[in-house]
Amino acid sequence: MAKMNITAEPGKQEIVMTRIFDAPREDVWRTVTVPELIPRWWGSRSFTTTVTVRDVRPGGIWRFVQRDADGNEYAFHGVYHEVALPERLVYTSEFEGMPGRVQLETVTFEDLNGRTKMTDRSIFQIVEDRDGMLQSGMEKEVTESMDRLAGLVEKQRAR
Amino acid sequence: MAKMNITAEPGKQEIVMTRIFDAPREDVWRTVTVPELIPRWWGSRSFTTTVTVRDVRPGGIWRFVQRDADGNEYAFHGVYHEVALPERLVYTSEFEGMPGRVQLETVTFEDLNGRTKMTDRSIFQIVEDRDGMLQSGMEKEVTESMDRLAGLVEKQRAR
Repeated sequence: MAKMNITAEPGKQEIVMTRIFDAPREDVWRTVTVPELIPRWWGSRSFTTTVTVRDVRPGGIWRFVQRDADGNEYAFHGVYHEVALPERLVYTSEFEGMPGRVQLETVTFEDLNGRTKMTDRSIFQIVEDRDGMLQSGMEKEVTESMDRLAGLVEKQRAR
Repeated sequence: MAKMNITAEPGKQEIVMTRIFDAPREDVWRTVTVPELIPRWWGSRSFTTTVTVRDVRPGGIWRFVQRDADGNEYAFHGVYHEVALPERLVYTSEFEGMPGRVQLETVTFEDLNGRTKMTDRSIFQIVEDRDGMLQSGMEKEVTESMDRLAGLVEKQRAR
């Protein structure tokens, strides 16, 4: 039920991920958008994530820095295009190690009688970047991140 | 030489447009990014364009309103992700008549020994939106817009 589903058709510029959470979408939305909670679910457990800035409004900037066990840092940033509570988030995303390679992310939250289906559609500028992302081992990391998010959504509900 | 080239492969989520301008890229960049000049080149001649806001910096918002001869208005807005003078502009774009349907635009300016090759890569969330844009008669409008821009770049140079 709560499994992550990743679709990436050959030759296309997108990766579509879905996941169902056992909580109303307002709860999922709140957990996803509160900056303070980012370090507790964003990315793999093996990284420490710091939020430099996260201004969730159209035109607002976000920037996260991931640090691995060896101290290597990986920074990501982007800009929010749309913040339509509790239905849709649209924003850009760029890994600072590859300047100019930008993704467009559309995250929708759909109500399933009290549960929430989250769909994350990542669009890449070129197919090669999409394929590079798939080959980077992102599936494992994203699955882990979504598991962390699901745990956190439940913890937030129980408070 | 100065012709517009539009590429849109079947089944893909992108439209790639190129145009060569007979001016250095700093001149093309300036003409493209100055808000006051937008009404003089953006879109077809048959529309009147008003710039509501255009804040060309990462996180800056832009919004243009087009009005046709009958007084119908068509508004577009987006957010700048990257402003890398004079090489690259990355921003989002949304037609307000279709909320949530967002494009990612990457415009690059390449120096060709004093002339400038501009490449505009539009990425759509889904293939159907890309195809809808192609069927809307955008080729004629974009060609006209690029012709207007080329004339304006030359006029700016002559000043």
